[in-house]
Amino acid sequence: MTLLWTVAFFTTAIAQENRIPSKGFAVFSADGQFKPYEFTRHAVGDNDIEIRILYAGICHSDVHHVRQDWAKEQFPMVPGHEIAGRIVKVGKNVTKFKVGDLAGVGCMINSCGECEACKENREQYCSNVVYTYHSHDQFHDYEFTQGGYSNNIVLTEKFAVKIPDNAKLEKVAPLLCAGITTYSPIHAVGVKKGDKVGVAGFGGLGHMAVQYMVALGAQVTVFDITENKRADAKRLGAIRYVNVNNPEDLKGLDNTMSFIISTIPANYDPYMYIKMLKLDGQLCIVGLPATANTPSIRIDKFVWQGGRKVFGSQIGGIKETQEMLDYSVANNIYPEVEMIKADGATITDAYQKVLDGKVKFRYVIDMSTLK
Amino acid sequence: MTLLWTVAFFTTAIAQENRIPSKGFAVFSADGQFKPYEFTRHAVGDNDIEIRILYAGICHSDVHHVRQDWAKEQFPMVPGHEIAGRIVKVGKNVTKFKVGDLAGVGCMINSCGECEACKENREQYCSNVVYTYHSHDQFHDYEFTQGGYSNNIVLTEKFAVKIPDNAKLEKVAPLLCAGITTYSPIHAVGVKKGDKVGVAGFGGLGHMAVQYMVALGAQVTVFDITENKRADAKRLGAIRYVNVNNPEDLKGLDNTMSFIISTIPANYDPYMYIKMLKLDGQLCIVGLPATANTPSIRIDKFVWQGGRKVFGSQIGGIKETQEMLDYSVANNIYPEVEMIKADGATITDAYQKVLDGKVKFRYVIDMSTLK
Repeated sequence: MTLLWTVAFFTTAIAQENRIPSKGFAVFSADGQFKPYEFTRHAVGDNDIEIRILYAGICHSDVHHVRQDWAKEQFPMVPGHEIAGRIVKVGKNVTKFKVGDLAGVGCMINSCGECEACKENREQYCSNVVYTYHSHDQFHDYEFTQGGYSNNIVLTEKFAVKIPDNAKLEKVAPLLCAGITTYSPIHAVGVKKGDKVGVAGFGGLGHMAVQYMVALGAQVTVFDITENKRADAKRLGAIRYVNVNNPEDLKGLDNTMSFIISTIPANYDPYMYIKMLKLDGQLCIVGLPATANTPSIRIDKFVWQGGRKVFGSQIGGIKETQEMLDYSVANNIYPEVEMIKADGATITDAYQKVLDGKVKFRYVIDMSTLK
Repeated sequence: MTLLWTVAFFTTAIAQENRIPSKGFAVFSADGQFKPYEFTRHAVGDNDIEIRILYAGICHSDVHHVRQDWAKEQFPMVPGHEIAGRIVKVGKNVTKFKVGDLAGVGCMINSCGECEACKENREQYCSNVVYTYHSHDQFHDYEFTQGGYSNNIVLTEKFAVKIPDNAKLEKVAPLLCAGITTYSPIHAVGVKKGDKVGVAGFGGLGHMAVQYMVALGAQVTVFDITENKRADAKRLGAIRYVNVNNPEDLKGLDNTMSFIISTIPANYDPYMYIKMLKLDGQLCIVGLPATANTPSIRIDKFVWQGGRKVFGSQIGGIKETQEMLDYSVANNIYPEVEMIKADGATITDAYQKVLDGKVKFRYVIDMSTLK
């Protein structure tokens, strides 16, 4: 017994000793002020990789987490689940990667591996999934996970994806969330050439959805609340842009679409979109407003507009994320990014611009500028 | 011009002259008091049939219409859209029926015939559908349609279905609404042997859903709010009965079912059922509470329980209604009915019992007792 305790003590001590120093930017309360933060990550285990982070995207859901829009959160919090970087260390059992490879990390860094969802390669629906940040990692003493607004990250190789060498690396990070979140349901419902489809909300997620569906040959209508994005929608291949504040734009769209994906992060009327679905059409919800501003669908609406389906979708499994990444690079589908410096005041300012609708599509933090 | 006017006048006069006298029971306001009512129906046109009504079911939606639970209504109103009877007259172009045949009528008596929904044999989703009652018939000078709590009905043969001679006629009427409303989505989603499925609300529609899914070999769990129906659920083949007011009954059901059909006509928590769906599971809404008591689903729930779908379904097309009727008779699947007399006070009383949850499954009015 004494021996066991001693071994356990040394093992823990060694694990503590080998923890990886990390630095980045955290918020220390819901006030949204980013400041430099130093912390440690768990040691590189036998199946783990350590990635030096080069780019981190700012997702609207990062803003929701920081502001506690969905739930009470733990601080300090380092957000960031759109991560692209280069591997600097691998554990002895790692086979998928070697030092020097490019790798990406999205919203998850682990899951139970045993439930139905995990067995179906849909780890995002595992009830024990470990999120990249704002999560407690049951595989590492329930340590609080910290995200990609930092210089490095350590995780099991299983939850990292390979970034092709010919990728436009500075644009890859947002594919890990905005890309897969739209790619997954679009491919799950089988959008195909000639389909009349819609994208509600033309921001980070929305402009990826447009590109994926245009690539499939669908006729894409884009919905947003501003005139500022009309030209961008056409440029990305949409056949129609609807400013929903303009009643004229909305005419003639009821019962016309086979699929609409809603990426809207603010309050809106979901039934307006359900009415645009033709028979057997589907509305997929991927964008989420703050809980207090989240709209509802009264269930009789489903009956009055019978034969149309509504579902939600979360990111995608790791296997599908790799497929999405390979597909995106092969088809030159990337987010449109505005690069910002790794600096507390700059990130704080970027968040405010996201809230004010002043970011067109996606901010990406150039983590190589971290001092 | 004069000639045309004269022809039009005589045509109208003849049509008026040949109108069919009808008598039944109507409510004259939302007070729910049924009283004898005499009126006329349009003449039997070349494609029409006249049915002497033998049985008329009382559907919960009749109660909603009478009480104006969903919308303002026109009175006097003769409800009834679960109709079984015998043909007494046929127009000269009628081919599907002959005098003496048994025929059934459900919720619709006509539709445009030209839209996508009509072309797909899903006339219930035609935006110009003519309902059996509470509707204005654009094919007959927008006359106000009156339903099955009456001695006869006249409609195009296209919207009547053939009742097999070996049917248990006194039980057939509720199949025309409660039967098809459950049969249609159950077959559309492809419920099959071994599937774990649920039926929420074990009344007129619910007890049909149980029988259809048991017949397909599914493992059916029934949900209701009373202990009174526990034995009935088991008797009809359910493997489990859940009294949702009993927290113990609800344990262990999350993420287990591939399909749940909700027939509940009162307020409830739809998210409780969405949580019971496993990945790719579907919740179908067919029951509707009064608008004021209709629950909503906040759209973030779709995302948190991603990969599950919600849809509504209305009855079924005429072709599918015929298929359902043939299938039900061939498989001895019928509603459990309580027969009541065609009498104003009796119907009024039956409505109150429906509202009080005192009818077990379905009242059917024996229209042959009409005096």
